[in-house]
Amino acid sequence: MSSDSTTIAKVRLQHIANTMGGPSKDPEHLPHRVKSTSEIVSRSELNPVHFLARSATVYPTKTAVAYGDRRYTYKELNRRSVALAYALKEQLDIRRGDRVAVIAPNIPAMLEAHFAIPAAHGIICAINTRLVATEVAYILEHSGAKVILCDSEFKDLVKDSKLPKVFIEDTGLATDPYEQFVAKGLSKADTLGWSGLDQTDDENEGVSLCYTSGTTGKPKGVLYTYRGMYLSALGNAIEAQLNLDSVHLFIVPLFHANSWIFPYAVTAISATHVLMRKVDYDLIWKTFHKEKVTHMNGAPTIMIQIVHHPDAVRLPKPITCTVAGSAPTATLISKMKELNMNICHVYGLTETYGPITKSYDQHEWADLSVEERSKKLARQGHVYVVSDDVRVVDSEMRDVAWDGKQVGEIVFRGNLTMKGYFNDPEATAKAFHGGWFHSGDLAVLEVAVVAAPSDRWGETPKGFVILKPGLPKEKIVDGPALIAFCKENMAGFKCPTSIVIVKELPKTSTGKLQKYILREQEWKGYSKRIN
Amino acid sequence: MSSDSTTIAKVRLQHIANTMGGPSKDPEHLPHRVKSTSEIVSRSELNPVHFLARSATVYPTKTAVAYGDRRYTYKELNRRSVALAYALKEQLDIRRGDRVAVIAPNIPAMLEAHFAIPAAHGIICAINTRLVATEVAYILEHSGAKVILCDSEFKDLVKDSKLPKVFIEDTGLATDPYEQFVAKGLSKADTLGWSGLDQTDDENEGVSLCYTSGTTGKPKGVLYTYRGMYLSALGNAIEAQLNLDSVHLFIVPLFHANSWIFPYAVTAISATHVLMRKVDYDLIWKTFHKEKVTHMNGAPTIMIQIVHHPDAVRLPKPITCTVAGSAPTATLISKMKELNMNICHVYGLTETYGPITKSYDQHEWADLSVEERSKKLARQGHVYVVSDDVRVVDSEMRDVAWDGKQVGEIVFRGNLTMKGYFNDPEATAKAFHGGWFHSGDLAVLEVAVVAAPSDRWGETPKGFVILKPGLPKEKIVDGPALIAFCKENMAGFKCPTSIVIVKELPKTSTGKLQKYILREQEWKGYSKRIN
Repeated sequence: MSSDSTTIAKVRLQHIANTMGGPSKDPEHLPHRVKSTSEIVSRSELNPVHFLARSATVYPTKTAVAYGDRRYTYKELNRRSVALAYALKEQLDIRRGDRVAVIAPNIPAMLEAHFAIPAAHGIICAINTRLVATEVAYILEHSGAKVILCDSEFKDLVKDSKLPKVFIEDTGLATDPYEQFVAKGLSKADTLGWSGLDQTDDENEGVSLCYTSGTTGKPKGVLYTYRGMYLSALGNAIEAQLNLDSVHLFIVPLFHANSWIFPYAVTAISATHVLMRKVDYDLIWKTFHKEKVTHMNGAPTIMIQIVHHPDAVRLPKPITCTVAGSAPTATLISKMKELNMNICHVYGLTETYGPITKSYDQHEWADLSVEERSKKLARQGHVYVVSDDVRVVDSEMRDVAWDGKQVGEIVFRGNLTMKGYFNDPEATAKAFHGGWFHSGDLAVLEVAVVAAPSDRWGETPKGFVILKPGLPKEKIVDGPALIAFCKENMAGFKCPTSIVIVKELPKTSTGKLQKYILREQEWKGYSKRIN
Repeated sequence: MSSDSTTIAKVRLQHIANTMGGPSKDPEHLPHRVKSTSEIVSRSELNPVHFLARSATVYPTKTAVAYGDRRYTYKELNRRSVALAYALKEQLDIRRGDRVAVIAPNIPAMLEAHFAIPAAHGIICAINTRLVATEVAYILEHSGAKVILCDSEFKDLVKDSKLPKVFIEDTGLATDPYEQFVAKGLSKADTLGWSGLDQTDDENEGVSLCYTSGTTGKPKGVLYTYRGMYLSALGNAIEAQLNLDSVHLFIVPLFHANSWIFPYAVTAISATHVLMRKVDYDLIWKTFHKEKVTHMNGAPTIMIQIVHHPDAVRLPKPITCTVAGSAPTATLISKMKELNMNICHVYGLTETYGPITKSYDQHEWADLSVEERSKKLARQGHVYVVSDDVRVVDSEMRDVAWDGKQVGEIVFRGNLTMKGYFNDPEATAKAFHGGWFHSGDLAVLEVAVVAAPSDRWGETPKGFVILKPGLPKEKIVDGPALIAFCKENMAGFKCPTSIVIVKELPKTSTGKLQKYILREQEWKGYSKRIN
């Protein structure tokens, strides 16, 4: 055995010693091992940035990005992203595993960063633009970010940071500091292309870091792997039925679970990304027509604003709307149908790369009324084609019946589950206890969430909870504590805005929950069900 | 470190020692390593049989299999496959990595075997029913098959084998020996389901063994991995745009590269498999109407028979036809368009899980004539979304220009490349030299293949070859030797049925090949271009 292989063997032994001791202390990737010829030939590492390189080869002249009047073809998106990768490496010394923070809305530079940072072998850390400066400072510190790419609108969020910064004016013009930075990598992009960039040789390595916006306790950094992003992208492409003619309007922020991994899904299919700086409902309707949008994602609250907009008209081509969060109401579904929008209802968390379960329409429901069908759709959910199992378990990790009576905890595992919380072995070990990812730990017996009126959103989710009888005093919680818990454990837009603790919930004689009674109660005095 | 971990470390060291010595001697899988908690939670092994378990959960009542008047829902297909897995384990002692030979046409039992054998942790070895008994005997011997599932029509092929056999009468009735065998596993299927089956914990493990039908030299066993099959299935689902309403008619035999992995692709999408014992053109047309077929795959020769059948009529719903082999002619494409059939032209080998490159239509060709467009389509090809790179190289592994003048060798690598040739380290090392899979090694300077008339097929590929000047005497080959070479290195249906060595090929003044002159020459005396 050569001395090289001895070293590798030592590293492996160290790894084995580490992993035998229980959960790994750090969710970071493992030391690499030597590959056999068979592995080199018959296996390549799953890497979502390959989708860009391939689309640029197969469809160089196709529109990759539409942003107002700006247009980039796949060849251009590829060239700009590769140039940005070289600039990050050579101007700012980005190396394998270095964290690059990005603070920007859904603009071309933000999309390019999603390809360029992994292409430079860094980890993208896209930060919520709605945070305040102290929260951003915490994330910059905790992630150990080395540089910041920042849209100028948000420059105050990073004004106290001493890190190197690249500002984005979002003009696309040669005078834009971002364009000047990209320009520094163009020569290598044109001569070496991808061949001069060091790509991951371990698909289990971390590549994206998304901080969850906890309100109690500090934000946690959810770490995604190359493998997870790649498989999530293919899964979303299949579940949303993206095809070559698809035009995806990005409503979900790219800083939110990387917009559910859709940048990579859309690019895998060589479809078109439509970007928008702000969620502006006038512009959304104009864009539907101008770009012939076929797909978009968002929360029911967003869909409600869209369908009730004065410009709303029936669309000539259907739009597939992937909607996460509380089940869309029959009213919303039927209004969307009128406008030629099809709903695909999903559930997920930042920790599951966004969507991981979906309500799958059954052919035998074809003759049901919209109301009946929505009820059925709201009740069931199954994992995505690329996911492993989902279970609902009690505190002893025993499966509980899906009877609508018992409430267990939803637990996941598999390729759509995060690698862990970055630099937080305790939180990771807690979330992964029992070998499953725990989505939350509500000590409640029964729960119901209904749409209640909201002056701001038209409707908003409201929760009704019965606590488990005989809970020890320290486990008895109130509504605000449950909301805080939800916010810590779920994406913010899914959280009920109010929760009340009740002694009982209205039920039929056979024990079925009568949510309509709760709804009637909430909407008393309103003339219609959408505010 | 515990003694367990010491053992594992020793196994790893042995592996490292082995792989440092160059190509692994055996393409079989590596010893497993211990997984950390993070890996257990955030990673599951890619396994195409999971698609069946999932579809049975999500769409239990949907039609999975249509075969004449027989129908199986996803719940039934799952139950039968799981029962077959238990029967294989308990009645015939099938254990991890055991090879199970299957000799059958495209019938329900054959499809079930594709799920049941991996579910029993065995390796499926589906054998070409067109072989003769001595060839089958060689494959049974070489693969080390432990048992044989055999359709009764082909019982003579295995009459001299002493291996345990399960015969399939293909009646679906309780009296059928196959049904009686499956019945032995039903009780466990109903009580334990998948939980009693030991699934792979290493996606790089072999799961399917497809023998190529070499005519010079012995057949070689192409070994597929769980990972490769899973990714190929997702790739095919995306490339063929399968969706929930898709109805795939299986024309390509399941023993041929596992019908290009489509059983797993169709199941991933919970679409419908339509099976047929024989390629019968009357029945194909009846089936198009009866089952509302939306997808099928095949060679151009099959498509020619279909479009010229007396029952051919324009179909109300389009059929997507994935066609492999020589480029379909403009005549064929336009005839298919008339009938509402869309061609998706792919290229692949058994060693690449079937299709790996495709001719991607470009939006800027929309206004071209069918003739012009087919020319363009025939000229280019790019890798599938889930594949790694393809290169065309000279004998020194240098990339050659794609100028239609130089002929290089097409080499592949990545997840759609086989694990290796089973139990044949020399052939594997040769095919994988330089770290790429070599699709063939034609020492020719120029080559042209055109459609020539055939009494049997209407048309058939004919090759024209100019040998490299100054070849050493022992490298000068003739037409039959080249055909033999093609047959050994390509799927049979892609091989020219005749090849002539010529001194020059007709060209324009700018050096472009004038294939139409060769074609005119071949079709002189025929009144139309399809015989």
